[in-house]
Amino acid sequence: MTKFMDVHRGMVGITAEQLHEAHDADLAIQAEEGVTFEQAWADPDDGVVYCLSEAPDAEAVQRIHQRAGHPADEIHKVPLIV
Amino acid sequence: MTKFMDVHRGMVGITAEQLHEAHDADLAIQAEEGVTFEQAWADPDDGVVYCLSEAPDAEAVQRIHQRAGHPADEIHKVPLIV
Repeated sequence: MTKFMDVHRGMVGITAEQLHEAHDADLAIQAEEGVTFEQAWADPDDGVVYCLSEAPDAEAVQRIHQRAGHPADEIHKVPLIV
Repeated sequence: MTKFMDVHRGMVGITAEQLHEAHDADLAIQAEEGVTFEQAWADPDDGVVYCLSEAPDAEAVQRIHQRAGHPADEIHKVPLIV
């Protein structure tokens, strides 16, 4: 398992409630791909959302995000953490 | 105080040791701007580093990164967290 940071753009004006709903939609199906979404951070002004997860590979992360209705624009494997 | 996520690009091939050194350089001077760097994640293949911090404003984050020798390419205020 590896950590991944993925990025969603075009989310200008996202609210706390919308972020929670999107995260909950991921959590509801993440186990089907062996993914664990850990945390997400949103910048409503610039419309950027960052999601940290642990997953078998980037494709598994993307499949969950796609099925939940919000495909990621970038997914980066982040094996180095400090 | 607000959370910020900043992004550094062009870090292809960054090692665990280099990430630690860069983070330590930030930690050494962060108090001078009231910044607390919390965590950093690096993708050596794509050369992207994400840094999470708590700070009075984005300019304070950038001043520390600049003085430590690695200015950020993007800094986003992330008030929404889940």
